Amino acid sequence: MTAYTATVTVRLKSGVLDPEAETTRRALERLEFDLDALRAADVFEIDLEADSSDDAERRAREMAERLLANPTIHDYEIAVRERE
Amino acid sequence: MTAYTATVTVRLKSGVLDPEAETTRRALERLEFDLDALRAADVFEIDLEADSSDDAERRAREMAERLLANPTIHDYEIAVRERE
Repeated sequence: MTAYTATVTVRLKSGVLDPEAETTRRALERLEFDLDALRAADVFEIDLEADSSDDAERRAREMAERLLANPTIHDYEIAVRERE
Repeated sequence: MTAYTATVTVRLKSGVLDPEAETTRRALERLEFDLDALRAADVFEIDLEADSSDDAERRAREMAERLLANPTIHDYEIAVRERE
């Protein structure tokens, strides 16, 4: 078994309204920052032991599907790296 | 001016309790997932026009300092890439 960290990034699908991101964007503009757009995402960094990087990714994907993301409104991506 | 996307990742400093991440970890364990640890982070992807990548990073850093992160409890990191 090898120690991995799987990073699951969960974003709203494009077209889904994000009032929190919109509020943050407006607050930045009120502070006189100049920006074109702002998107928010949730990231989960999961430490796990697995037989291979593929195995770690498969398990992280299952976690995303079952709990971390809502497939109706979210897209997600997964990156796996070995932990030292 | 060039179009950039600055990605600001905001994490709780180590040692700061994260009840939301703890709840997520327990929920995954209740679903019989096996994991060692789970950390949560907030990511802000900011589209902005800037004179240079350094300028985009400087402005994203100021946004992090003034609004996106709370220096008492958060660490943050910034990555800048050109937008197509």
